[in-house]
Amino acid sequence: MIKVLRLGHRRGRDDRISTHVGLTARQWGTDEIVFAGEKDENMLESQKDIINRWGGNTEIRYAEDWKSEIKDFEGLKIHLTMYGERIDETMEALEEEFENQDLLLIVGAEKVDRWVYTNVDYNISVGNQPHSEIAALAVFLDRMEGLKEDFEDASIQVNPSEDRKLTEKL
Amino acid sequence: MIKVLRLGHRRGRDDRISTHVGLTARQWGTDEIVFAGEKDENMLESQKDIINRWGGNTEIRYAEDWKSEIKDFEGLKIHLTMYGERIDETMEALEEEFENQDLLLIVGAEKVDRWVYTNVDYNISVGNQPHSEIAALAVFLDRMEGLKEDFEDASIQVNPSEDRKLTEKL
Repeated sequence: MIKVLRLGHRRGRDDRISTHVGLTARQWGTDEIVFAGEKDENMLESQKDIINRWGGNTEIRYAEDWKSEIKDFEGLKIHLTMYGERIDETMEALEEEFENQDLLLIVGAEKVDRWVYTNVDYNISVGNQPHSEIAALAVFLDRMEGLKEDFEDASIQVNPSEDRKLTEKL
Repeated sequence: MIKVLRLGHRRGRDDRISTHVGLTARQWGTDEIVFAGEKDENMLESQKDIINRWGGNTEIRYAEDWKSEIKDFEGLKIHLTMYGERIDETMEALEEEFENQDLLLIVGAEKVDRWVYTNVDYNISVGNQPHSEIAALAVFLDRMEGLKEDFEDASIQVNPSEDRKLTEKL
Protein backbone atom coordinates (compact mmCIF):
# COMPACT_ATOMS: atom_id res chain seq x y z
CA MET A 1 0.00 0.00 0.00
CA ILE A 2 1.33 3.42 -0.97
CA LYS A 3 0.13 6.73 0.47
CA VAL A 4 1.23 10.16 -0.72
CA LEU A 5 1.11 13.25 1.50
CA ARG A 6 1.33 16.59 -0.26
CA LEU A 7 2.25 19.37 2.20
CA GLY A 8 1.63 23.09 2.09
CA HIS A 9 -1.07 23.48 -0.58
CA ARG A 10 -2.08 27.11 -1.21
CA ARG A 11 -5.44 27.83 -2.84
CA GLY A 12 -5.12 29.55 -6.20
CA ARG A 13 -1.36 29.55 -6.46
CA ASP A 14 -0.93 25.76 -6.17
CA ASP A 15 -4.13 24.44 -7.80
CA ARG A 16 -2.53 23.05 -10.90
CA ILE A 17 0.67 21.82 -9.27
CA SER A 18 -1.30 19.96 -6.57
CA THR A 19 -3.62 18.50 -9.20
CA HIS A 20 -0.59 17.23 -11.13
CA VAL A 21 0.80 15.75 -7.90
CA GLY A 22 -2.46 13.88 -7.27
CA LEU A 23 -2.95 12.60 -10.81
CA THR A 24 0.69 11.54 -11.04
CA ALA A 25 0.44 9.63 -7.78
CA ARG A 26 -2.66 7.87 -9.17
CA GLN A 27 -1.00 6.99 -12.52
CA TRP A 28 1.82 5.22 -10.69
CA GLY A 29 -0.53 3.22 -8.47
CA THR A 30 -0.83 5.19 -5.23
CA ASP A 31 -3.75 4.03 -3.06
CA GLU A 32 -4.33 7.19 -1.04
CA ILE A 33 -3.42 10.85 -1.54
CA VAL A 34 -3.70 13.33 1.31
CA PHE A 35 -3.47 17.09 0.76
CA ALA A 36 -2.42 19.37 3.61
CA GLY A 37 -2.08 23.15 3.81
CA GLU A 38 -5.07 25.27 2.85
CA LYS A 39 -8.33 23.37 2.43
CA ASP A 40 -9.41 23.50 -1.21
CA GLU A 41 -12.66 21.68 -2.04
CA ASN A 42 -12.56 22.69 -5.71
CA MET A 43 -9.14 21.18 -6.26
CA LEU A 44 -10.20 17.95 -4.52
CA GLU A 45 -13.51 17.76 -6.41
CA SER A 46 -11.86 18.18 -9.80
CA GLN A 47 -9.54 15.27 -9.04
CA LYS A 48 -12.42 13.14 -7.77
CA ASP A 49 -14.31 13.81 -11.02
CA ILE A 50 -11.33 12.58 -13.03
CA ILE A 51 -11.02 9.45 -10.88
CA ASN A 52 -14.73 8.73 -11.28
CA ARG A 53 -14.49 8.91 -15.07
CA TRP A 54 -11.12 7.22 -15.52
CA GLY A 55 -11.55 4.58 -12.82
CA GLY A 56 -9.47 3.02 -10.10
CA ASN A 57 -9.68 3.11 -6.33
CA THR A 58 -7.35 5.96 -5.39
CA GLU A 59 -8.72 7.75 -2.31
CA ILE A 60 -8.27 11.51 -2.07
CA ARG A 61 -8.79 13.65 1.01
CA TYR A 62 -7.75 16.76 2.93
CA ALA A 63 -6.00 16.69 6.33
CA GLU A 64 -5.56 19.75 8.51
CA ASP A 65 -3.34 17.90 11.00
CA TRP A 66 -0.54 16.83 8.69
CA LYS A 67 1.84 15.89 11.50
CA SER A 68 -0.52 13.12 12.61
CA GLU A 69 -0.59 11.79 9.04
CA ILE A 70 3.13 11.20 9.42
CA LYS A 71 3.32 10.19 13.10
CA ASP A 72 0.42 7.72 12.91
CA PHE A 73 1.50 6.05 9.67
CA GLU A 74 2.67 2.48 10.19
CA GLY A 75 5.33 1.73 7.60
CA LEU A 76 8.24 3.22 5.75
CA LYS A 77 8.19 7.05 5.71
CA ILE A 78 10.13 8.78 2.94
CA HIS A 79 10.36 12.52 2.36
CA LEU A 80 11.33 13.45 -1.19
CA THR A 81 13.54 16.55 -1.11
CA MET A 82 16.38 17.95 -3.19
CA TYR A 83 18.47 18.02 0.02
CA GLY A 84 18.18 14.29 0.77
CA GLU A 85 20.40 11.30 0.12
CA ARG A 86 20.75 10.36 -3.53
CA ILE A 87 18.11 7.99 -4.95
CA ASP A 88 20.75 6.31 -7.13
CA GLU A 89 22.60 5.26 -3.96
CA THR A 90 19.63 4.27 -1.80
CA MET A 91 16.94 2.75 -4.02
CA GLU A 92 18.03 -0.84 -3.67
CA ALA A 93 17.86 -0.75 0.13
CA LEU A 94 14.51 1.09 0.06
CA GLU A 95 13.00 -1.48 -2.28
CA GLU A 96 13.94 -4.22 0.15
CA GLU A 97 12.34 -2.36 3.05
CA PHE A 98 9.18 -1.69 1.01
CA GLU A 99 8.69 -5.42 0.37
CA ASN A 100 7.52 -5.93 3.93
CA GLN A 101 5.62 -2.78 4.80
CA ASP A 102 3.47 0.07 3.57
CA LEU A 103 5.01 3.23 2.14
CA LEU A 104 4.32 6.90 2.88
CA LEU A 105 5.81 9.36 0.39
CA ILE A 106 5.88 13.01 1.42
CA VAL A 107 6.30 15.88 -1.03
CA GLY A 108 6.44 19.50 -0.01
CA ALA A 109 5.73 22.90 -1.33
CA GLU A 110 8.47 25.54 -1.30
CA LYS A 111 9.24 25.54 2.42
CA VAL A 112 9.09 22.26 4.32
CA ASP A 113 9.11 22.33 8.13
CA ARG A 114 12.32 21.07 9.72
CA TRP A 115 10.14 18.68 11.75
CA VAL A 116 9.49 16.63 8.61
CA TYR A 117 13.20 15.99 8.01
CA THR A 118 13.63 14.49 11.48
CA ASN A 119 10.36 12.54 11.71
CA VAL A 120 10.70 10.35 8.63
CA ASP A 121 12.81 7.27 8.01
CA TYR A 122 14.57 8.72 4.98
CA ASN A 123 15.02 12.04 3.21
CA ILE A 124 15.68 11.12 -0.41
CA SER A 125 16.64 13.34 -3.33
CA VAL A 126 15.59 12.61 -6.90
CA GLY A 127 18.31 14.93 -8.15
CA ASN A 128 19.94 17.63 -6.00
CA GLN A 129 18.90 20.49 -8.28
CA PRO A 130 15.79 22.65 -7.89
CA HIS A 131 13.08 21.20 -10.16
CA SER A 132 9.63 19.80 -9.39
CA GLU A 133 7.90 17.76 -6.71
CA ILE A 134 5.80 16.26 -9.52
CA ALA A 135 8.91 15.01 -11.32
CA ALA A 136 10.48 13.72 -8.09
CA LEU A 137 7.33 11.81 -7.15
CA ALA A 138 6.86 10.36 -10.64
CA VAL A 139 10.42 9.12 -10.95
CA PHE A 140 10.55 7.69 -7.43
CA LEU A 141 7.31 5.76 -8.03
CA ASP A 142 8.42 4.71 -11.51
CA ARG A 143 11.62 3.22 -10.15
CA MET A 144 9.86 1.62 -7.18
CA GLU A 145 6.69 0.35 -8.82
CA GLY A 146 6.39 1.21 -12.50
CA LEU A 147 3.29 2.43 -14.32
CA LYS A 148 -0.17 1.21 -13.39
CA GLU A 149 -2.18 0.19 -16.45
CA ASP A 150 -5.55 -1.08 -15.29
CA PHE A 151 -8.06 1.14 -13.55
CA GLU A 152 -11.27 -0.58 -12.42
CA ASP A 153 -14.73 0.72 -13.20
CA ALA A 154 -13.59 3.38 -15.66
CA SER A 155 -16.21 4.91 -17.95
CA ILE A 156 -13.56 5.97 -20.49
CA GLN A 157 -10.19 4.66 -21.61
CA VAL A 158 -7.48 5.48 -24.15
CA ASN A 159 -6.68 3.01 -26.90
CA PRO A 160 -2.96 3.69 -27.48
CA SER A 161 -2.35 4.88 -31.03
CA GLU A 162 0.57 5.64 -33.33
CA ASP A 163 -0.79 8.95 -34.55
CA ARG A 164 -4.11 10.06 -33.07
CA LYS A 165 -6.34 10.48 -30.02
CA LEU A 166 -8.48 7.38 -29.58
CA THR A 167 -10.74 7.06 -26.59
CA GLU A 168 -13.42 4.48 -25.91
CA LYS A 169 -16.47 4.76 -23.70
CA LEU A 170 -16.92 1.73 -21.49
CA MET B 1 21.92 16.00 -27.67
CA ILE B 2 18.42 16.34 -26.25
CA LYS B 3 16.04 19.24 -26.92
CA VAL B 4 12.67 19.74 -25.26
CA LEU B 5 9.87 21.74 -26.87
CA ARG B 6 7.07 22.85 -24.55
CA LEU B 7 3.98 23.86 -26.57
CA GLY B 8 1.10 26.17 -25.75
CA HIS B 9 2.42 28.16 -22.77
CA ARG B 10 -0.11 30.69 -21.41
CA ARG B 11 1.13 33.63 -19.33
CA GLY B 12 -0.15 33.57 -15.77
CA ARG B 13 -2.03 30.29 -15.91
CA ASP B 14 0.97 28.14 -16.92
CA ASP B 15 3.88 29.96 -15.23
CA ARG B 16 4.59 27.37 -12.61
CA ILE B 17 3.86 24.32 -14.76
CA SER B 18 6.17 25.60 -17.52
CA THR B 19 8.87 26.41 -14.96
CA HIS B 20 8.61 22.85 -13.62
CA VAL B 21 8.86 21.52 -17.19
CA GLY B 22 12.04 23.52 -17.80
CA LEU B 23 13.75 22.68 -14.51
CA THR B 24 12.83 19.00 -14.86
CA ALA B 25 14.27 18.88 -18.37
CA ARG B 26 17.48 20.43 -17.01
CA GLN B 27 17.75 17.98 -14.06
CA TRP B 28 17.65 15.04 -16.46
CA GLY B 29 20.31 16.49 -18.75
CA THR B 30 18.44 18.28 -21.54
CA ASP B 31 20.70 20.61 -23.57
CA GLU B 32 18.07 23.01 -24.91
CA ILE B 33 14.53 23.91 -23.86
CA VAL B 34 12.25 25.87 -26.18
CA PHE B 35 8.97 27.39 -24.98
CA ALA B 36 6.18 28.10 -27.47
CA GLY B 37 2.76 29.67 -27.02
CA GLU B 38 2.56 33.08 -25.38
CA LYS B 39 5.87 34.89 -24.98
CA ASP B 40 6.69 35.21 -21.28
CA GLU B 41 9.97 36.96 -20.47
CA ASN B 42 9.45 36.71 -16.70
CA MET B 43 9.08 32.95 -16.79
CA LEU B 44 12.19 32.61 -18.96
CA GLU B 45 14.21 35.00 -16.80
CA SER B 46 13.37 33.19 -13.58
CA GLN B 47 14.62 29.94 -15.10
CA LYS B 48 17.77 31.60 -16.42
CA ASP B 49 18.47 32.95 -12.92
CA ILE B 50 18.24 29.43 -11.50
CA ILE B 51 20.54 28.04 -14.19
CA ASN B 52 23.07 30.81 -13.54
CA ARG B 53 23.20 29.99 -9.82
CA TRP B 54 22.99 26.21 -10.04
CA GLY B 55 25.17 25.79 -13.12
CA GLY B 56 25.18 23.74 -16.28
CA ASN B 57 24.82 24.66 -19.92
CA THR B 58 21.11 24.21 -20.57
CA GLU B 59 19.93 26.81 -23.12
CA ILE B 60 16.46 28.29 -22.71
CA ARG B 61 14.57 30.34 -25.29
CA TYR B 62 11.19 31.29 -26.72
CA ALA B 63 10.02 30.38 -30.25
CA GLU B 64 6.95 31.86 -31.88
CA ASP B 65 7.14 29.52 -34.87
CA TRP B 66 6.90 26.18 -33.09
CA LYS B 67 6.19 24.18 -36.27
CA SER B 68 9.65 25.06 -37.60
CA GLU B 69 11.19 23.85 -34.33
CA ILE B 70 9.76 20.44 -35.18
CA LYS B 71 10.14 20.46 -38.99
CA ASP B 72 13.75 21.69 -38.97
CA PHE B 73 14.98 19.39 -36.20
CA GLU B 74 17.38 16.74 -37.46
CA GLY B 75 16.96 13.66 -35.32
CA LEU B 76 14.39 11.54 -33.56
CA LYS B 77 11.15 13.44 -32.83
CA ILE B 78 8.98 12.12 -30.01
CA HIS B 79 5.72 13.63 -28.80
CA LEU B 80 4.80 12.60 -25.26
CA THR B 81 1.02 12.22 -25.01
CA MET B 82 -1.40 10.09 -23.01
CA TYR B 83 -2.86 8.92 -26.35
CA GLY B 84 0.39 7.49 -27.72
CA GLU B 85 1.91 4.03 -27.86
CA ARG B 86 2.93 2.63 -24.50
CA ILE B 87 6.42 3.47 -23.26
CA ASP B 88 6.75 0.01 -21.71
CA GLU B 89 6.39 -1.52 -25.19
CA THR B 90 8.50 0.94 -27.16
CA MET B 91 11.41 2.10 -24.99
CA GLU B 92 13.89 -0.52 -26.08
CA ALA B 93 13.50 0.36 -29.78
CA LEU B 94 13.63 4.09 -29.03
CA GLU B 95 16.84 3.72 -27.05
CA GLU B 96 18.45 2.02 -30.02
CA GLU B 97 17.37 4.83 -32.35
CA PHE B 98 18.61 7.48 -29.93
CA GLU B 99 22.11 5.99 -29.90
CA ASN B 100 22.78 7.38 -33.37
CA GLN B 101 20.96 10.70 -33.45
CA ASP B 102 19.73 13.72 -31.51
CA LEU B 103 16.40 13.66 -29.70
CA LEU B 104 13.53 16.18 -29.69
CA LEU B 105 10.93 15.62 -26.97
CA ILE B 106 7.66 17.54 -27.33
CA VAL B 107 5.24 18.10 -24.47
CA GLY B 108 1.98 19.93 -24.82
CA ALA B 109 -0.47 21.94 -22.85
CA GLU B 110 -4.09 20.87 -22.67
CA LYS B 111 -4.87 20.89 -26.40
CA VAL B 112 -2.19 19.78 -28.84
CA ASP B 113 -2.67 20.48 -32.56
CA ARG B 114 -3.38 17.40 -34.67
CA TRP B 115 -0.42 18.47 -36.86
CA VAL B 116 1.99 17.47 -34.08
CA TYR B 117 0.73 13.88 -33.99
CA THR B 118 1.42 13.41 -37.71
CA ASN B 119 4.73 15.31 -37.95
CA VAL B 120 6.76 13.42 -35.35
CA ASP B 121 8.38 9.99 -35.53
CA TYR B 122 6.57 8.65 -32.47
CA ASN B 123 3.68 9.55 -30.19
CA ILE B 124 4.52 7.89 -26.88
CA SER B 125 2.44 7.62 -23.72
CA VAL B 126 3.95 7.52 -20.26
CA GLY B 127 0.72 6.08 -18.89
CA ASN B 128 -2.64 6.39 -20.68
CA GLN B 129 -4.32 8.25 -17.85
CA PRO B 130 -4.65 12.02 -17.51
CA HIS B 131 -1.81 13.25 -15.28
CA SER B 132 1.07 15.65 -15.91
CA GLU B 133 3.42 16.62 -18.73
CA ILE B 134 6.05 17.20 -16.03
CA ALA B 135 5.74 13.60 -14.82
CA ALA B 136 5.72 12.22 -18.37
CA LEU B 137 8.85 14.16 -19.31
CA ALA B 138 10.69 13.23 -16.10
CA VAL B 139 9.99 9.52 -16.40
CA PHE B 140 10.78 9.35 -20.10
CA LEU B 141 14.14 11.08 -19.54
CA ASP B 142 14.84 9.00 -16.43
CA ARG B 143 14.35 5.76 -18.36
CA MET B 144 16.31 7.03 -21.37
CA GLU B 145 19.18 8.84 -19.67
CA GLY B 146 18.97 8.85 -15.87
CA LEU B 147 19.67 11.78 -13.57
CA LYS B 148 22.37 14.31 -14.33
CA GLU B 149 24.59 14.98 -11.32
CA ASP B 150 27.27 17.47 -12.32
CA PHE B 151 26.45 21.00 -13.36
CA GLU B 152 29.42 23.12 -14.45
CA ASP B 153 30.15 26.58 -13.09
CA ALA B 154 27.55 26.45 -10.33
CA SER B 155 27.78 29.01 -7.53
CA ILE B 156 25.81 26.80 -5.14
CA GLN B 157 25.35 23.08 -4.64
CA VAL B 158 23.53 20.70 -2.27
CA ASN B 159 25.51 18.33 -0.11
CA PRO B 160 23.11 15.37 0.18
CA SER B 161 22.14 14.78 3.81
CA GLU B 162 20.26 12.23 5.88
CA ASP B 163 18.25 14.78 7.81
CA ARG B 164 18.83 18.42 6.91
CA LYS B 165 19.28 21.09 4.25
CA LEU B 166 22.97 21.51 3.48
CA THR B 167 24.09 23.82 0.73
CA GLU B 168 27.58 24.98 -0.11
CA LYS B 169 28.67 28.14 -1.91
CA LEU B 170 31.25 27.45 -4.60
